[in-house]
Amino acid sequence: MGDHPNIYDDPSFLEGYSRLPRSLDGLDGAAEWPALRDMLPDMRGLRVVDLGCGRGWFCRWARENGAAYVHGIDLSSRMLAHACANTSDPTIVYELGSLEHLTLPPASFDLAYSSLAFHYISDAARLYADIARCLRPGGRLVFSTEHPIYMATANPGWLEIQTGAKVWPVDSYFAEGPRRTDWITKGVLKYHRTIGTTINLLIRSGFRIEQVEEFCPTAEQITARPALAEELQRPTFLLVSALRA
Amino acid sequence: MGDHPNIYDDPSFLEGYSRLPRSLDGLDGAAEWPALRDMLPDMRGLRVVDLGCGRGWFCRWARENGAAYVHGIDLSSRMLAHACANTSDPTIVYELGSLEHLTLPPASFDLAYSSLAFHYISDAARLYADIARCLRPGGRLVFSTEHPIYMATANPGWLEIQTGAKVWPVDSYFAEGPRRTDWITKGVLKYHRTIGTTINLLIRSGFRIEQVEEFCPTAEQITARPALAEELQRPTFLLVSALRA
Repeated sequence: MGDHPNIYDDPSFLEGYSRLPRSLDGLDGAAEWPALRDMLPDMRGLRVVDLGCGRGWFCRWARENGAAYVHGIDLSSRMLAHACANTSDPTIVYELGSLEHLTLPPASFDLAYSSLAFHYISDAARLYADIARCLRPGGRLVFSTEHPIYMATANPGWLEIQTGAKVWPVDSYFAEGPRRTDWITKGVLKYHRTIGTTINLLIRSGFRIEQVEEFCPTAEQITARPALAEELQRPTFLLVSALRA
Repeated sequence: MGDHPNIYDDPSFLEGYSRLPRSLDGLDGAAEWPALRDMLPDMRGLRVVDLGCGRGWFCRWARENGAAYVHGIDLSSRMLAHACANTSDPTIVYELGSLEHLTLPPASFDLAYSSLAFHYISDAARLYADIARCLRPGGRLVFSTEHPIYMATANPGWLEIQTGAKVWPVDSYFAEGPRRTDWITKGVLKYHRTIGTTINLLIRSGFRIEQVEEFCPTAEQITARPALAEELQRPTFLLVSALRA
């Protein structure tokens, strides 16, 4: 499994992933979606690219909210098959491709969006440079990624300390690079980068940081899904809005 | 002790603090100083304010490196007594005052510097707004502060897990506000803020983020001080450079 070119095409992974709320309920099944949505500009008239579009939930939402054109890219042919089956909108285009090498035309988008895909990418400097190139000046990049506090440790999992409280372990923070973790299937490959690396690479790629959020569930979300309460202890997702200067 | 108006005037705290390498050896006794120094602009001709100047090590360094004028502010009369005794330079001015309410004249500085003082300040929004006001447009704020990953937990201290590895606990990350910890003396009062809060408050105060570093010791530093090796596991200090737009 670890050597499968793309876990989202791995049948056993896909079967587990398909049962997650974010697969079954789309955008509203992802607890961090309201926070990410609040970071998005008015979609009307925008040319949008969705990097790691999966089943196309966001692509369809963007069009429903007035985007002029949406280009979704994903490495998983199985996910794209779902995406294509769910729309007949001719202004939504799906591309089977890797985010490791973007070949989008320069200055052709107003908004680049990505939900929880960038932590699978090994070369963030190239990724951000590719995105900067495909955005017009004044365009925006809005993305979520796994938080380095969540991802750094070599041994992910809550620890119970003597007081009975649960703590999240942080170690290996400055050891940037691959992390193999067991999520749905064994040995899912992700790439850990520090907060500083992410922010500085964006700035050096020509972006101006506009907003940085760390997903924190609201009281209403915790009431509806009590398991989310543990997300108050440590940040799981990093959400960034950056302006292409 | 916890209710002492300023721990740096507390005799028992000051006695312990005075024995730290950063007190005895000045800037070179602080492992993060080379990283912070690398974020500073050319000092020649700059009007500099040092927020939490302590014994004035940085104020003297700034003048030695060409600053035109240096204004040091500190809440501790004992620290300022040391600072004043160590220079007769008329272009270094020391002020006894709190960072909670800065009363510096507007647009009067090119660089605001601060080393490990901001985590003692309860109202970061007011602090950043005050600094933005005293800087000329195009001026810079360069500061270090305790890292939220380091400061969040209610129970600071390394934990040893089953593999024998040491991990740093993170919990209470989204519970921003006071933290009382035992450092040199009992109940030192600090204020935890998330990364997102720090960055967004700076941006809303009129700053453009230029660089974010998380102190990581170099191989040479670890060779010279092996105890620093544990600093590879989790970030202790957050270092920020921001431009007054």
